[in-house]
Amino acid sequence: MTKYVEELIAIIRGNLSREELIDRLFDYHDNDIAEALELLTPEERKRLYSALGAERVAEIFAYLDDGDIYLKELSLKQQAKVISEMDSDDAVDILEEVDDDTKCKILGMLDKEASEDVRLLLSYDEDEIGSYMTTNFILIHNDLTVREAMRELVRQAGENDNISTIYVVDRQEQYYGAIELQDLIIAREHVELEDLISRSYPFVMDHEKISDCIEKIKDYAEDSIPVLLEDRSIGGIITAQDIVEVVDDEMGDDYAKLAGLTAEEDLNETTGESIRKRLPWLVILLFLGMVVSAVVGVFESVVAVLPIVMCFQSLILDMAGNVGTQSLAVTIRVLMDENLTTGQKVKLMFKEMKIGFFNGAILAVMALVFLGAYIHLFKGFTLGYSLMISACVGVSLVGAMVVSSLVGTLTPIFFKKVGVDPAVASGPLITTINDLVAIVVYYGLVAVVLIDIVHLV
Amino acid sequence: MTKYVEELIAIIRGNLSREELIDRLFDYHDNDIAEALELLTPEERKRLYSALGAERVAEIFAYLDDGDIYLKELSLKQQAKVISEMDSDDAVDILEEVDDDTKCKILGMLDKEASEDVRLLLSYDEDEIGSYMTTNFILIHNDLTVREAMRELVRQAGENDNISTIYVVDRQEQYYGAIELQDLIIAREHVELEDLISRSYPFVMDHEKISDCIEKIKDYAEDSIPVLLEDRSIGGIITAQDIVEVVDDEMGDDYAKLAGLTAEEDLNETTGESIRKRLPWLVILLFLGMVVSAVVGVFESVVAVLPIVMCFQSLILDMAGNVGTQSLAVTIRVLMDENLTTGQKVKLMFKEMKIGFFNGAILAVMALVFLGAYIHLFKGFTLGYSLMISACVGVSLVGAMVVSSLVGTLTPIFFKKVGVDPAVASGPLITTINDLVAIVVYYGLVAVVLIDIVHLV
Repeated sequence: MTKYVEELIAIIRGNLSREELIDRLFDYHDNDIAEALELLTPEERKRLYSALGAERVAEIFAYLDDGDIYLKELSLKQQAKVISEMDSDDAVDILEEVDDDTKCKILGMLDKEASEDVRLLLSYDEDEIGSYMTTNFILIHNDLTVREAMRELVRQAGENDNISTIYVVDRQEQYYGAIELQDLIIAREHVELEDLISRSYPFVMDHEKISDCIEKIKDYAEDSIPVLLEDRSIGGIITAQDIVEVVDDEMGDDYAKLAGLTAEEDLNETTGESIRKRLPWLVILLFLGMVVSAVVGVFESVVAVLPIVMCFQSLILDMAGNVGTQSLAVTIRVLMDENLTTGQKVKLMFKEMKIGFFNGAILAVMALVFLGAYIHLFKGFTLGYSLMISACVGVSLVGAMVVSSLVGTLTPIFFKKVGVDPAVASGPLITTINDLVAIVVYYGLVAVVLIDIVHLV
Repeated sequence: MTKYVEELIAIIRGNLSREELIDRLFDYHDNDIAEALELLTPEERKRLYSALGAERVAEIFAYLDDGDIYLKELSLKQQAKVISEMDSDDAVDILEEVDDDTKCKILGMLDKEASEDVRLLLSYDEDEIGSYMTTNFILIHNDLTVREAMRELVRQAGENDNISTIYVVDRQEQYYGAIELQDLIIAREHVELEDLISRSYPFVMDHEKISDCIEKIKDYAEDSIPVLLEDRSIGGIITAQDIVEVVDDEMGDDYAKLAGLTAEEDLNETTGESIRKRLPWLVILLFLGMVVSAVVGVFESVVAVLPIVMCFQSLILDMAGNVGTQSLAVTIRVLMDENLTTGQKVKLMFKEMKIGFFNGAILAVMALVFLGAYIHLFKGFTLGYSLMISACVGVSLVGAMVVSSLVGTLTPIFFKKVGVDPAVASGPLITTINDLVAIVVYYGLVAVVLIDIVHLV
């Protein structure tokens, strides 16, 4: 609990008059008040809601992670009023948590503008950039003078607080460009508005997939970027705060998928939800693991005559897995960040294989020496035979690591090509292929070299 | 290549007069020009630099990933001029890529203000929030009138483009609060400035670790947040664009570490760099793998008398690894996002273990049935014996998965407690412990139940 939150709790519980309470709370950040809300009793909260009024409550609720819980503490009419006052994207975030029945009722009670905005946002898929936009922005026409534009800004700034970029449309309401507020503020009266408008200001289309446009949006590093509808009118804007949220969500998703979670989890999830999220993955992995087991079964006879070799199976499989994961992680990030040409993909593939080979070779030499010594000293084989066994491990390491690098690079490229999310699908397939290759190479080598040729047993 | 970049290339190569060129380029976004730069010849670029002037070049260079390469194309004097014009954090980004000799020379040639700002930023560690701040912001005193504040804003807006929040200090230059530009713009003349100042506007201290304050900064969702120095004066601000960058870096780092990469890699890295980045990890994993191999060696005699059981070793180890990674990933994210009490940590631990147990039990039943059938049908054991073997696999799965969940949760909590980055250190340790536990449980079970008690062989 921060100092500000402590202060807030003391103020709210301090039996102040309504006016004094409002006055004292004016100074605090909505986010701190939101944090304080969670520590109050429902009665204290209700008193606070009525003192603050719908507009401030709307601003505070936008900072809550589970705003739906607190929204319920208001009457349905108040709920609709608060939702009407919210930025459309925040309103949608809360409405999506509310049960369908209440949602319909609230939607019916919103004022016309809020209702239109919210319905528009609800019409987008979760992975479309339109679902993140807000309709809180300043919009002017391109045929105004600088003085008229400034007056229009002041008029709209009461309602809309994303003012650092002013968006411009022509008389057909089509996107025309953008003006930095800074330029407008320091402009002399006689300057033409046209000279202030950046005609090539970046934009995105509402139905663009987030994963396709997020790099572009990040690159422009603007306070906000407009989202155009099909008719090239401005549907809303993506603010820098939205971008933080999108980047956080996207990266969190990637992270979760790499770890074999179907979605990011948090502390408040029930055990049941977590089980359901993780189980599908594990079942797939179990059956793929059975396939690997069946292949190991083919080499049962090798192990039966030379049991020592099975000690190193886990080593080779683990290393192949580690290398495959490294290549996979790098490839997924690269695929997401840039549009690669075929040439670049081939280059990446060879690079990963080279890395796999050189790292494999270094590790193989280490394995040859250390495992050879171990087998000789602790397992009673002659030094020559010990080195032959550890050489098999070393050669298998190199082979497995080169193949793992290749598979770890090609699999995500392939899945991306056929339109499947590479972050989800690649992991299990790569593990299985790597395990199979490593096992066949290793036990195959042992069978041919140690048993058939050297006649170690 | 986007449409804008194509247009830009055509314009720059179009043999326009200098004035016409400047005029045409005015309209384009710095980021697009930065992208176009990479496609021009050095001669074309040099012509462009001199046409655009140091201020615009500085803005464009801020968008380049490898600005140092292009900076070199300017004379040392021009370099210092461009760096002087840049936001201090962007200037530092470029200077960090330049060789030390040139860096010193440039630092000596910067104008006084830029030089002070850059030296301040260079004094911070990479993981301190101060290293991300910019000195581009509007600063006023708290005893101005609204009209004076507005005039001061217009005066400073020529130099500083982060104007959406205006920072306020008292006459001792100590942080006093912040004003939303929107509030200043719509304020009537007779309003006291004091009434517009938010005294509880959030701030961070310059030496705070990024990982400690990034969640707070994200939560406030502001356009910018001030960074205070030890004497409580404002050293700079963190803009929303900086926040995007920090979040992107932090999450990218987590992602890379989870994949066993010491740092995030990109496409342009040389093979040698990638090898060096990945090798340390792999060497550690190799030696830990050798420890596991030695433990497997203890059970050589078990496998020698009943080779079939080694087929399922990879299955149990892989599953334990997968479950451990899931728990690890969840725990690391939770540890990063929130300050957990001991009670919450214990709760998380039990929750993870419960998830491990239930998922393990479900998978164990599947393993019992499917592996039992496989052993009976393909390996020639009686149905009873087959089910006994597959039951050993099933029981080991449950045991291994519960232990993996526990280890996957406790290890990062432990490392965080002792001040080691849990994302880096946890992976290899967890894999090793999980492998060891799984192997001891599985082969131990087989040795005791199948061989000693049932006398399967």
